[in-house]
Amino acid sequence: MSSKKVGILGATGTVGQRFILLLAEHPIFTIHALGASARSAGKPYKDAVRWKQSCPIPDHVANMVVQPCEAELFKDCDIVFSGLDADVAGDIEMAMLKQDIAVFSNAKNYRRDPAVPLIVPTVNANHFDIIPHQRQLYNLKKGFIITNANCSTTGLVVPLKALQDAFGPLSHIIVHTQQAISGAGYPGVPSLDILDNVVPYIGGEEEKMEWEVGKILGDLSDDKTAFVHLSEDKNATTVSATCTRVPVLDGHLESVSVKFAHASPSIEEVYQVLENYQSEAETLGCHLAPKKPIVVNYDADRPQPRLDRENLKGQTVTVGRVRKCPVLDVKFMLLVHNTLLGAAGSSVLNAEIAVAKGLI
Amino acid sequence: MSSKKVGILGATGTVGQRFILLLAEHPIFTIHALGASARSAGKPYKDAVRWKQSCPIPDHVANMVVQPCEAELFKDCDIVFSGLDADVAGDIEMAMLKQDIAVFSNAKNYRRDPAVPLIVPTVNANHFDIIPHQRQLYNLKKGFIITNANCSTTGLVVPLKALQDAFGPLSHIIVHTQQAISGAGYPGVPSLDILDNVVPYIGGEEEKMEWEVGKILGDLSDDKTAFVHLSEDKNATTVSATCTRVPVLDGHLESVSVKFAHASPSIEEVYQVLENYQSEAETLGCHLAPKKPIVVNYDADRPQPRLDRENLKGQTVTVGRVRKCPVLDVKFMLLVHNTLLGAAGSSVLNAEIAVAKGLI
Amino acid sequence: MSSKKVGILGATGTVGQRFILLLAEHPIFTIHALGASARSAGKPYKDAVRWKQSCPIPDHVANMVVQPCEAELFKDCDIVFSGLDADVAGDIEMAMLKQDIAVFSNAKNYRRDPAVPLIVPTVNANHFDIIPHQRQLYNLKKGFIITNANCSTTGLVVPLKALQDAFGPLSHIIVHTQQAISGAGYPGVPSLDILDNVVPYIGGEEEKMEWEVGKILGDLSDDKTAFVHLSEDKNATTVSATCTRVPVLDGHLESVSVKFAHASPSIEEVYQVLENYQSEAETLGCHLAPKKPIVVNYDADRPQPRLDRENLKGQTVTVGRVRKCPVLDVKFMLLVHNTLLGAAGSSVLNAEIAVAKGLI
Amino acid sequence: MSSKKVGILGATGTVGQRFILLLAEHPIFTIHALGASARSAGKPYKDAVRWKQSCPIPDHVANMVVQPCEAELFKDCDIVFSGLDADVAGDIEMAMLKQDIAVFSNAKNYRRDPAVPLIVPTVNANHFDIIPHQRQLYNLKKGFIITNANCSTTGLVVPLKALQDAFGPLSHIIVHTQQAISGAGYPGVPSLDILDNVVPYIGGEEEKMEWEVGKILGDLSDDKTAFVHLSEDKNATTVSATCTRVPVLDGHLESVSVKFAHASPSIEEVYQVLENYQSEAETLGCHLAPKKPIVVNYDADRPQPRLDRENLKGQTVTVGRVRKCPVLDVKFMLLVHNTLLGAAGSSVLNAEIAVAKGLI
Repeated sequence: MSSKKVGILGATGTVGQRFILLLAEHPIFTIHALGASARSAGKPYKDAVRWKQSCPIPDHVANMVVQPCEAELFKDCDIVFSGLDADVAGDIEMAMLKQDIAVFSNAKNYRRDPAVPLIVPTVNANHFDIIPHQRQLYNLKKGFIITNANCSTTGLVVPLKALQDAFGPLSHIIVHTQQAISGAGYPGVPSLDILDNVVPYIGGEEEKMEWEVGKILGDLSDDKTAFVHLSEDKNATTVSATCTRVPVLDGHLESVSVKFAHASPSIEEVYQVLENYQSEAETLGCHLAPKKPIVVNYDADRPQPRLDRENLKGQTVTVGRVRKCPVLDVKFMLLVHNTLLGAAGSSVLNAEIAVAKGLI
Repeated sequence: MSSKKVGILGATGTVGQRFILLLAEHPIFTIHALGASARSAGKPYKDAVRWKQSCPIPDHVANMVVQPCEAELFKDCDIVFSGLDADVAGDIEMAMLKQDIAVFSNAKNYRRDPAVPLIVPTVNANHFDIIPHQRQLYNLKKGFIITNANCSTTGLVVPLKALQDAFGPLSHIIVHTQQAISGAGYPGVPSLDILDNVVPYIGGEEEKMEWEVGKILGDLSDDKTAFVHLSEDKNATTVSATCTRVPVLDGHLESVSVKFAHASPSIEEVYQVLENYQSEAETLGCHLAPKKPIVVNYDADRPQPRLDRENLKGQTVTVGRVRKCPVLDVKFMLLVHNTLLGAAGSSVLNAEIAVAKGLI
Repeated sequence: MSSKKVGILGATGTVGQRFILLLAEHPIFTIHALGASARSAGKPYKDAVRWKQSCPIPDHVANMVVQPCEAELFKDCDIVFSGLDADVAGDIEMAMLKQDIAVFSNAKNYRRDPAVPLIVPTVNANHFDIIPHQRQLYNLKKGFIITNANCSTTGLVVPLKALQDAFGPLSHIIVHTQQAISGAGYPGVPSLDILDNVVPYIGGEEEKMEWEVGKILGDLSDDKTAFVHLSEDKNATTVSATCTRVPVLDGHLESVSVKFAHASPSIEEVYQVLENYQSEAETLGCHLAPKKPIVVNYDADRPQPRLDRENLKGQTVTVGRVRKCPVLDVKFMLLVHNTLLGAAGSSVLNAEIAVAKGLI
Repeated sequence: MSSKKVGILGATGTVGQRFILLLAEHPIFTIHALGASARSAGKPYKDAVRWKQSCPIPDHVANMVVQPCEAELFKDCDIVFSGLDADVAGDIEMAMLKQDIAVFSNAKNYRRDPAVPLIVPTVNANHFDIIPHQRQLYNLKKGFIITNANCSTTGLVVPLKALQDAFGPLSHIIVHTQQAISGAGYPGVPSLDILDNVVPYIGGEEEKMEWEVGKILGDLSDDKTAFVHLSEDKNATTVSATCTRVPVLDGHLESVSVKFAHASPSIEEVYQVLENYQSEAETLGCHLAPKKPIVVNYDADRPQPRLDRENLKGQTVTVGRVRKCPVLDVKFMLLVHNTLLGAAGSSVLNAEIAVAKGLI
């Protein structure tokens, strides 16, 4: 298979930097174009970026010239990955789509669009089945647009999907997050706000989590033209989220309590279901698909951000502390790497799935 | 009123250091004796302690000689405050009690004793009414023993009490804590465990929270000889707690969801009840009683540990972000200073209440 | 003595917030006007500021309306304290001066002006003697302008002054700083830059330290019309500074090596000189003058930012670890609270000195 | 070449954990035995260790049974790497040596022994030439003992060696360190001591740095039986060190000022010398030898611990901010990964060098 040419939009941002690391030596994708704001355009990447990763800029990327995010300039790309901020992502991604390019977006703008899938690659790769319908709507031959979920939602839905598949609908979910500062980009969170502190609020985050879970864990309609959001189902799933920011560099930790609509599994059964969960991404042989979509850690004090965020290259979700919830049914802790599986890693794996499914 | 002589047990520990700061210039208590382990005994306090407070050791305490925690040596004290660890607190506190001394303990050892009150001073000062019964049991004239609650429980029960008083029984409570490192004492949490990290487990803490709430918010029997734990009530209150440790020096942040047994108050009604809550401690004119047992902060991103822990000298609970919970009824965030109201500050205020009630 | 009316320029910034706390209950100064940028002007202070202090906004300041920094609006003030950034401080402070107001500036703009004193209040209060000359130059009756030093310079010159007074000229000084994030203002240092990190560079800081020491420790000319910078002296003092930023909220730590031009004091003699150092500020009975301008801590591992920054209300410099330097003569560590003595605290104490000297 | 069997002493400690990661998939070394204290002996490694690395325990090591550190049990090993604490390292390492094993020690015990080399692999690999003499002394055929330097010394001597080689003797060195918490082992530094703080003292560290530089940068005697410490030279090098602990996980940052005995190189010449420095380790083709022993970073605000510690797998020293020192001649900043090149990485690379030189 010949390599696909990819463009990266928002290449200088924190998500964009992760895209570059994931794609610099990718077996089937080749970085072809870098897009950023007008301020960066025209400069070599190394001069345009404030590189904040702990490994250096890949040599062949360092001197690539950054372009403005104009669709015309990316028309040779098979794929564009977008790490753009929501305030500009809407128009630019739509322009790329209309160039018949496959667009993989991290922004929130199209997540609620009824024809745009919201895909966590180890959860609902079947939602790609709406692409023919989407192409028809936009009159496209090769292009389409896929969004991936909010970083906190992404971590949450992986074990929820495993539980839902095994034990049927989940009626109630209460989730409390402790999110890393890298989720806010750069400069992002001022150090005076977070050193020796926790900020118990992240604008818009709780609403995103409470809504996105229902689309991701919901079904496609039988004719593959619409999504059936869980809240529309007779077995509605209700989510209550509280989101906080903690002084951690990478890795969102989430405490989850779940109530099943009908089942009462034992703790052992829950552990077994989490251990055995498989995703289509791995079956398809995708490069970035984790060997296990869920890593279970049985130690009493895990998962921990610093020790578990790099598990399986940051593409898995680590789960621990499964125990009875005196109020709902079961509670547990999970950890997701917010800029890998929680952002750039989902996008790239989604693109690998699309290639494996013959959509690109 | 003449000043009362007080002893401090565990005077060199982190809670002990807070006792010293609270008592060094107290209007009705005078530090008379300092107790610590055999290793410290015989040394001037300043040489025995590893002082970790941001203000210096009070001058007149610095050269007091530390004693072993033998009851005989504290018999001149009217009161002893105990910041002892649970592994030694049981025997020592009992020996002090048998010397007919009023003992105020921070340890967990006697919290579940059916004749020992578990008092959060701005919540259930009425539980002092069991003291005559307790004295009878132990055949004491002046002495008695009072425990105060776990630091996380302490923060939680203050707004819960306000809600219960106003809206009747609470049927379900889910609480998630983010606790400061000072709660683990010194040396306590290794820096390698908590820098750029969160530890999602604190041994025994969740069980304490889930049990203690029921004793504190429960009633005394009509004859003042027993406590009616909420779980024994037909309106049982069920608590589910998850406790984590975060890189914060002082101040436990808690995210709480509550379901009422019968009521459905609006958010505005909840705010009003929290604003208007009063405690007996203030009515009695106690020195350390906060002007308001609950400070409400209406900013979207509060309370925060670093900015709110010193509110009203660390003796109040700061509450914010009251909003509808899609799963239970109402959710909010609270902050309590874990070594002030959450430990030493509760003990001293409890002792002030006991003096005001004529028990000492 | 009647109270003086004071204005605060840059009142919403981090230094401005410290001014408000220092002046809210000041015995001889009354906050009369608050100045900030056009964006804040017209709003009540509590709505204009992002308050980041651990104690609340003083009640009577919270609702004061913020004004633009126009000299006309501050003409009723006896004094203005400026916490303005250097990019706007030059013009605004000059306009205030021309209104015949006494201006106390934290900005760097006029520090090198040959007629403007650069005063660290516990070091060179005698430099106020140039004020008659300055007034003549600007044709003023009551007004004048005083600058205080860079926060790191401020900590450094206090023990250097003690040593210079006792042992004669210092020929060489090497200083290495570890500076708190509050020194960079708000939002200031991004958390992604400083968590689990040290930034070994602060723009312009090393140059400031290397130059300012010479003006502060230098003399006034005999006719009180000029400053004799140490580098112009035959006993020139050479300073080499390295400045770094560390994840500490408040308190700059400095490691200093000193070579004396002529003396060879023993470590004991150095300790004694530091212990006994007195400043004119205290002799004048100023409210904010620390009881001791230098607090010596003899513990092996002190001073430490978190434990020592609040010593004597943040108006002293804590010194420890005095020992032989194998390369120069003597080395030691010092700690200064960067927003108290290192900024707002110096300004206010300078103003108290000016009042005590009859200049206001 | 057949693989060498290696043992790891102190295998459960923080340095031991690094040894395991470096050796688990090493091309010429095979982990054969793990030694730890009696408390750990007899347990599978995964149960004996408190693993604090961000990647998991290698599978084939997890179930190896830990042994007590008795020489008899390690006699099948060609090499033992010791991460033992100084209080036990002396006797155990000597016993291993007497079993005729090649011992590579991180402890300080034998660093000052006149027959034991103190080797930083990219600096003084020529000191291996004393081994024949050492073997004669101890009557050994295959065994010998090599120490590597203190972590802070290790970072310092690499650029100093480059400068000394190019510009001749260095007469004076002033160095100030900001050291990571991992250098203190586990549990090591209590979080209450280091959060929002700097500790300006590390017991014994300054003395080690001031002495070790002279042995490492010194010569071997012509007959290869003794080391000529720099302080014994007519061109004596004097070092003044100040060591502090900062809230950083890994990576020691050092600020260095240097005076040359005879030379006055320009900043450009210094940069060129650092860029071009080569070490024998690389010439020998050693697996862990960094491509460049010194990486120069020309950005104004580098090196930084979080961004530069992983450069060239943590085996290089990153240098930046070379500039004139107004007091000595030249000053610069360096960064060394304290548990890689600064500890376990030096030991393993030293062993690779010994194999390449035919000593094992």
